[in-house]
This record gives sequence, structure tokens and C-alpha cells, in this order.
Amino acid sequence: MNKKGINLPIALPRGVKDFLPTVAGRINRIGDELSRVFELWGYRGVMTPTIEYLDVLALAEPELLERMFKFEDRDSGKVIALRPDITSQIARLAATHLKDHAKPLRLHYSGSVLHYGERDKGSSREIYQSGLELIGLDQPEADGEIIAVAVEAMKATGLTDFKIDVGQVEFFRGVMEGLSLAEDVRRDVEIAVARKDRSGIEELLPSLNLGSRDEEALLALPTLFGKREVLERAAVMTVSPRAQKALENLSEVLHTIDSYGLGDFITVDLGEIRGLNYYTGVIFEGFVTGLGEEICGGGRYDGLLGRYGNDQPATGFAINVETLLKALEKQGETRGAGSPDFLLLNLGKEKHEALKVARHLRSKGLKVAREIAKRDIGGSLAFASSEVIDRLIIMGGNDLEKGHMLVKDIRNDKEEKVSIDDLISGAVDLARRG
Amino acid sequence: MNKKGINLPIALPRGVKDFLPTVAGRINRIGDELSRVFELWGYRGVMTPTIEYLDVLALAEPELLERMFKFEDRDSGKVIALRPDITSQIARLAATHLKDHAKPLRLHYSGSVLHYGERDKGSSREIYQSGLELIGLDQPEADGEIIAVAVEAMKATGLTDFKIDVGQVEFFRGVMEGLSLAEDVRRDVEIAVARKDRSGIEELLPSLNLGSRDEEALLALPTLFGKREVLERAAVMTVSPRAQKALENLSEVLHTIDSYGLGDFITVDLGEIRGLNYYTGVIFEGFVTGLGEEICGGGRYDGLLGRYGNDQPATGFAINVETLLKALEKQGETRGAGSPDFLLLNLGKEKHEALKVARHLRSKGLKVAREIAKRDIGGSLAFASSEVIDRLIIMGGNDLEKGHMLVKDIRNDKEEKVSIDDLISGAVDLARRG
Repeated sequence: MNKKGINLPIALPRGVKDFLPTVAGRINRIGDELSRVFELWGYRGVMTPTIEYLDVLALAEPELLERMFKFEDRDSGKVIALRPDITSQIARLAATHLKDHAKPLRLHYSGSVLHYGERDKGSSREIYQSGLELIGLDQPEADGEIIAVAVEAMKATGLTDFKIDVGQVEFFRGVMEGLSLAEDVRRDVEIAVARKDRSGIEELLPSLNLGSRDEEALLALPTLFGKREVLERAAVMTVSPRAQKALENLSEVLHTIDSYGLGDFITVDLGEIRGLNYYTGVIFEGFVTGLGEEICGGGRYDGLLGRYGNDQPATGFAINVETLLKALEKQGETRGAGSPDFLLLNLGKEKHEALKVARHLRSKGLKVAREIAKRDIGGSLAFASSEVIDRLIIMGGNDLEKGHMLVKDIRNDKEEKVSIDDLISGAVDLARRG
Repeated sequence: MNKKGINLPIALPRGVKDFLPTVAGRINRIGDELSRVFELWGYRGVMTPTIEYLDVLALAEPELLERMFKFEDRDSGKVIALRPDITSQIARLAATHLKDHAKPLRLHYSGSVLHYGERDKGSSREIYQSGLELIGLDQPEADGEIIAVAVEAMKATGLTDFKIDVGQVEFFRGVMEGLSLAEDVRRDVEIAVARKDRSGIEELLPSLNLGSRDEEALLALPTLFGKREVLERAAVMTVSPRAQKALENLSEVLHTIDSYGLGDFITVDLGEIRGLNYYTGVIFEGFVTGLGEEICGGGRYDGLLGRYGNDQPATGFAINVETLLKALEKQGETRGAGSPDFLLLNLGKEKHEALKVARHLRSKGLKVAREIAKRDIGGSLAFASSEVIDRLIIMGGNDLEKGHMLVKDIRNDKEEKVSIDDLISGAVDLARRG
């Protein structure tokens, strides 16, 4: 290998990337905010491994099998996969380690999931998530709680103008059940409904030989989204008891969300049919207009723990942290752990005093980077500017009285002489900006 | 698949595991504390992907090649590996994305690395790390700074009784350089020195045909650890200019650490020779007595960025978060995001008031889990006990005046009637414990 000219492209695999300080700082702030809200609602953190045996993951998600990254374990000879989803890991954990633990379990997590992108998409292969699971409750109030937490968590990050689309998978299943369609036709209808493609349904109808009432129901399916009146329209279009039960359940969940005062964030979408087959009840997606991808998604998955040997009702969601970041940036919200507050420079032998000042400022929560590179003040100023460090502290040098330091505010082009004793005693407070 | 009797062991691959709430809460607290200290010293977060092309990772760490988890990328046909180390990813990032960025770079990270364990060990395959890199400075003060940050970060988590063993790889290399030993003999000496095995060196000597001065030097090598006087002993045992330069450099680094007032945490170990070949100067390890594994490790790696096409001096370290947790638990320090503060229960129709109380308490930073399960007060009390939730808030029920709630302190077996208006107005503060 030639150190001067590397004959290898230093590239990353498709769909994964590095996050540089400004963006990484925002992502870390978002993650901290989300965890804080989850904890306030009584959820506790858990951590699950990045790799698992493929056959264990496949219990939860046979449909994701083809998209997992996998390799053979040198020791066991078994196939290991990178986790494509954390919900199923927590279902496993709850059904095994916490099988005999008092219910409900309120658990939250953050981490990345990895899998090949969907066909026809240059999509991410590593997705950073924060999410939670509420395990052991089948009441609509449980579904209502997690949607309320999703709303509160996103609000806490600073997001304002977003909506949660709430659906109920059992409604669609109930309507379809009565029609006895062939599996491939059922699939075509599902795709048309998910796309809100009424003319697609129209084209399918002649081949289906349905009565006019059923035809009307199918044609109505792609239109069942919007405000609460959707539930009334949906109720009259089907006699399926399963679909009716789904509507009652959805209505109670919405009622709970209303009682949290969060009804304005909610829209209804009965054509919302999520990708993963493990959902069994109310499901939802969070989005902002014009973003093109959902910020969060989740719902009820009562069958999943049973696949790991301990049947329990459960509901939960995951927030895609990178998408949430995009939504926040679109909105102009760019808070995040930023640059250091000060660059600290000692020109002479004042090292001991410089370190005392640094320690003091850090104890007040101020971020201090020390100038170690040997360069003149001009060089240090240029460095501070390029790093968006707004203030330079200079110690030593000819113009300064002993026991004093110079605080240069680069952005406002001001400077101030500060007594070090005054700083340490608290008589001077550098926490205020500018 | 039979839901009642699963005929598959629900096991995890060797060397990876789940972390349940109590431990996960401690790990999260430790991670937050470490990041906070890193930021106070002017370091900014970055994030790197879990997977990379094997040939790119191999530029940094050919010696880890055999221990990486790898698979063929379905799209590119290239071999992808799970990252076995984050330092080399940050070296890559700094040498490419941040090539033209002002120096120094102060970067921190947290995440897990994955690789097969070392032979003969039931060791972890997924290791959780928090670490930092200081890139673009070759001064001993840079090495001193990162050791000081390592000490301050570990102290911030609550760790008290630990030591940092500091060495300098160039010393050993300098001593060996003059002896012109065959590579396999050199390797045997290295192993004996690393094990502090003086009799191992004695056995090797007869076959080496060295002068008595060189023999004495080799015999002294495994004894060069302890307090600062080690540097004086080492200085007289070799005439190698390279070894002498290493001692001077180490001495300056120790001086910097002293000026931070952290000298008491330091021991010297010139037989400290870390596993990764990319180290080029001062190296160190943090440990507590009796733990058997190092809590953190790092050092100078001036050649690493050059392997990615942008030569820069650099130094850094990683803290093994799980080992740090073990050290803290050994010491009796078990802080971490714990159970919720309250379980909130409404017996009747006071849902609106219950949600108002929950919102108020959460706004004060108190963690409130709402009782959604339908069970009697006895059941709720049992649930709260098993979850180590110390206080139960009961709303409604026959004995309570309107507008009041009952706060039961389960641990101290006390209860108190509280006016909801007083709580909301701030006249009553439930933040105090008990």
C-alpha cells in the first residue's frame, strides 16, 4: 500500500453513512429528548444485540428474511443476521427473560436496524430508531397512551406541524373476509387501497362478480381517510362484525387521545395498511406535509410475543430519528450540541491558571477547548471562526495585567478584560452569551 | 410453527446479550455522563456506520481481519464487515470528509463494535464503547489532555479508585532496534515483557548471544512499571536515541497530567504493549484492582490517517462501557435511570383530572406510569412493589373528597391526602421523596 497514493476508493457501502459533528449533535439531542419523554411516561430503557440467529429473528418476521444481512457463524455454523427491527427483539426479550415479570411492561430503546433497501429505492440500509413497547395490555387506552407519547415525544424535540394517521388493520381484514376473493386479487385490492387508487379498484371490479353493495364498499375503501366522519362513513358501508368491532376499537382509542388533549394531531386513515404482517389492531404513522417518508410508525401486535412462547397483547412504535431530523430542519429547528463555547489560549507560562479557568468554566457547564497548537493569535482566531467558537480567552501576553485574562467575542467583535479571581469567585459570570 | 410449544431454542449467539431495564438504565446514565464530559472539553459527537467494506477497514487493521464478521454484499458483490473498532472509522472520516477542515479536530462517539472473541476466551463479541479522538496535534500536551479527559470522564460517572497505566511503545521499539533479533525471538521477548515474566527472558538469553549490558537491559524490561522513578531506571539501561526520545516524550506527557492535578491517578508501565499495531507513542489503559480487564485504553496513532490518504498525528481512547459498569457496581455505585416515581390510578371517571395530574408531574421531571390494567387496589399495589415504584396516586373511590387524591408511599407505609388544585398551583410539591 502506498501511503501517498491509495489505489482503493475509500467508499462506504450503499445506504450507510457518516454523520459529521453538526448533524450528529442534532441527532444526539433528538435522541436524548425522546428518551427523556419516554422515561417521564414510565418507560424504562432496554438494550438488545446488533446480531441474532436468523431462525430466531425469522419467527417474528419471515417477510423480512430476504432483506436481512446474514453470515455463517464460524463457531456454531448457524446463520447469524443483523437485526432488521428492534420490536421483535423486545418481543423476544419480554417473552423469555421477562416472561414472569409483572405486567404491563413499559420498555423503550434506541439503536440502529440494518437490512437491504426495498426494491427500486436508493433507501437507507442502516436506520436509527428510538421507540417503545407497551406489553401486557389489550385495552384501547394502551393504544391511546402510546400515540399520546409519540405526539409528546415529537413535540419535545421542537416539531410542531405534524399529523398522526391512525388506522385499524382489522377493518380492512373484516371487509375483505366477506368477499372471498382469491389471494392475488385480494393483494391487488390491498395495493390499490394503500395507494388510494379508486380507478384501480374500478378496473378490478368487472372480474370480481360482486353484488352492488360489495362493489360500493370496495370503491369506498380508498376514500376512507380524513377527519372523524370517516368512521361514520365506514360504519355504514360494511356489515362485517369484524370490521364493525375494529371501528369501535378505533373510536375508543381516538377518544383516549382526545382526553389527552392531543386530538388535533390526529387524522384517520382506514386505507393505512402497514408493511409488517405482525400488526393486529390500531396502527399509526406520523408525518409532516411534503417530506415523503413517515417519521414514526407503530401499532398493536398481539400475536408477536406468542411466536416466542408467551402470548401477550402488545403495542408500540418506532421513531426514525433521521427522518425526524429532516422534518425539524425543514421547520428551521436546528438545535443540537454545538461548537465549544470558548477556545482557551495561554501565550506564556500561565498554564496552571489556564487549567484553573478551564476547570471552573466546565464546572458551570460551559464547553472549553484548549488551544494546544503553536500558532499566533491570528491563527487561533481563524481556527475559532472556522469552528464557530464564538469566544476566545487569551491569558498572558504583554498587554495584560497579572491575574487577568482577555475574553474576545469574535462574532460581535468585542473584548473584555476579566479578573481571574472575579471569575472563580463568581463575581463575573461568562455563561451569558455575547 | 406451534404457538404453544416452540421447537426451537430462543437463544442468542455467543458473546452478545440483552440488557434488562436496571442494567440498561445504568449503562445509559454512564453513556450520558461520558458524552457530557467530552463535550465540556470541546469534543463534538460524530456517528459512523455499523458496516463498512472489508478492504477499507483492513487498511487500518490488517491484524483484525481474521476476527471480523463479514458477508458478501448482494448488490456490489464486495465483502462487507461489521466494524471491529470505531477509531479507524473516525481516522477514515477525518482523512476524507474532514481532510480540509481546520485542525485540531476534537471528536467523540459512542456505539458498539463487533468481532469474534480472542482464542481461548468466552469473551464478548459486541462491545459498547464511548471514546474520543484528538486529531492534528503531535504535542505531548495533546496526549496529556486526552488522558486527563479519560480520568475526568470516569470520575464523573462516580468511579473513584482507579489507575491509568501509561506507557510509550517507542521505548520498547528503540531498545529492541539495537539488538537485531530475529522476528520470532523479538516476538517471544515482547510476550515475556507484556506478561512481566522475567524468568521467561532469562530462559531466552543464552540463545541470543548479547553483550552483558544488553542482557541486563532485557532483564530489566519486565520490571519497568510503577511510580515515576521507572523513567530514571529506564533512562540508564539503554543508549538507544529512539528509546531516550520516547522517555522524554512520556515525561512531558506526565508533566501535563500533573498540571491538571491528576497525577495521583497515574502509574507508569513501559512493558505495556497494546494489541493494535497502529499505536506510535504514548499509550494507556485504565483499570481498577481485581477486575481483570481494562476499563479504557488508547494512545497515539500517528500513522493511521495516512493509510486513508491524509497524514495527520492523532491520539485517542475508548472506554468499555460495560467494564466501567462492572467497576462501578463493584464499588457500590448503581445510579441509573430507575423505576417510575409514581403509579397513577383512577378508580372512577376522573380520567380528565388524572391526565392533568400526570401532565403536571411530568412537567416537573417526575416519571409517571398510568395504571391502565383493570385490577383492584391490591393488584396495583402488588404491581407497584414488583416494579419498585415507591408511590401510588389514587384518584376517585368512595373515601376521597372531590378534587383530592391519595398519595400512598408504599416503602414507608404512609399516605397523604392532596388537593389537586394545590398540586397544580405549586402549593404542594411531590418532588421530595417519601
